[in-house]
Amino acid sequence: MSERDLQEELAFAHQLADAAGAAILPHFRNLSGVENKLDIGFDPVTIADRAAETAMRERIIAHRPQDGILGEEFPSIASRNGWSWTLDPIDGTRGFIAGTPVWCVLIALTFEDRPVLGMVSQPYIKERFTGFGDLAELSTHSRKSRLQVSTVDDLSSAIMATTDPHLFEGGEAIQFARLREKIRLTRYGMDAYAYALLAAGGIDLVVETGLGLHDLHALVPVVRAAGGTITDWSGGDDYQKGQLIAAATPALHQQAMKRLAG
Amino acid sequence: MSERDLQEELAFAHQLADAAGAAILPHFRNLSGVENKLDIGFDPVTIADRAAETAMRERIIAHRPQDGILGEEFPSIASRNGWSWTLDPIDGTRGFIAGTPVWCVLIALTFEDRPVLGMVSQPYIKERFTGFGDLAELSTHSRKSRLQVSTVDDLSSAIMATTDPHLFEGGEAIQFARLREKIRLTRYGMDAYAYALLAAGGIDLVVETGLGLHDLHALVPVVRAAGGTITDWSGGDDYQKGQLIAAATPALHQQAMKRLAG
Repeated sequence: MSERDLQEELAFAHQLADAAGAAILPHFRNLSGVENKLDIGFDPVTIADRAAETAMRERIIAHRPQDGILGEEFPSIASRNGWSWTLDPIDGTRGFIAGTPVWCVLIALTFEDRPVLGMVSQPYIKERFTGFGDLAELSTHSRKSRLQVSTVDDLSSAIMATTDPHLFEGGEAIQFARLREKIRLTRYGMDAYAYALLAAGGIDLVVETGLGLHDLHALVPVVRAAGGTITDWSGGDDYQKGQLIAAATPALHQQAMKRLAG
Repeated sequence: MSERDLQEELAFAHQLADAAGAAILPHFRNLSGVENKLDIGFDPVTIADRAAETAMRERIIAHRPQDGILGEEFPSIASRNGWSWTLDPIDGTRGFIAGTPVWCVLIALTFEDRPVLGMVSQPYIKERFTGFGDLAELSTHSRKSRLQVSTVDDLSSAIMATTDPHLFEGGEAIQFARLREKIRLTRYGMDAYAYALLAAGGIDLVVETGLGLHDLHALVPVVRAAGGTITDWSGGDDYQKGQLIAAATPALHQQAMKRLAG
């Protein structure tokens, strides 16, 4: 890997998150006059989404001109040095529309397509979950603390999260149901924020499908830096399939993979 | 109704919420050393739950000595004047354990068992959704704004919320599935916070079952003051059944009731 000071890149990611948050917040819960929030001719958070990605892109182009950009809203820019930024200006757009305060800005730095630094930022609550190497932190407006996964190593003790049980279809629905019946407690509705809570030790297992690279690149370094295990459903790192499984401990990860496999 | 200045009672409810928040927050996300969060011999949020209810009870006994108290954690105190306080120190204990920031302190003032004033407080985010008469407000640490439900009047345009799809069993599961298939988007995992977002116009419909009086008394005045409709599944106010349906508009409420009825 070409050398970069990741602490410096983290500081830069905080600047990107500042810009994204400032672009989004005026639109959050600004619901007046939107009668049919899902049928107004465009994705209802498009304005905030695009403004935030534009704000982050401008800063990357100005301060990291050789780096690539993989964003949700605009065409990719190829990297000229192996480094690239993966941006999801609003992860959890459906929660955003509903007014739930757990949508996130996702920012990842990748080197040769592997995520090395991640940030999950919630601007309304003012929380940022970050990770690179083995340094995972939660910064709030008032304090900074280390993130550390739980020690739960058994499905029957685990709290699992997934965004929506009805997102699993066909064979995946059967796989997920097989897993869920062994789990102590399942929580729904959190999108990327669930992985942040896994890093924080509150949730022990997250299982999802249908994710894009912009949904998941930021999560990988945060979960790993907090001591967790995160892979595709086969235990590898082929994220193109959109399947993700994150666990607090290797034992829990193994058990969950086994139930998914049948 | 015997006369009371409800603006004054709201100010008192804010004092109760202050006391509850102060008792709970030191325990939120304090997860260290709890290996099996659901199997440690007692409800894992019991300490915070009881401390918060005790703090609120002390204040009610001191400042409203004739009023009754219906709390989740301790025996009821009968009212000597028709007025009573319904307290749920932590609604959404499962979300609390997982670290989700949408658990709530619920406070209601009832007169002859009918809720007349309600508060849904989220101390971590510092949000309070309040309502009495036709005055519904959201107070955050920085501002106060009126709450107003959406104008959505058709199931196919509606965003619905319920805490967990697997809480519906038997006939209720069939009823709920019949409703869900007509809905535009369903969100999960929010407990009482979903009703607060309905009052704020983000969510259009909430359907739940298995609720206790301490879970629902506070929600009724907040939803009604914001312009919404809230009843049991039969359209009445027999809350002993634990079924609740809240809707942004009467038309939406009617359609949802019809689907539940079959």
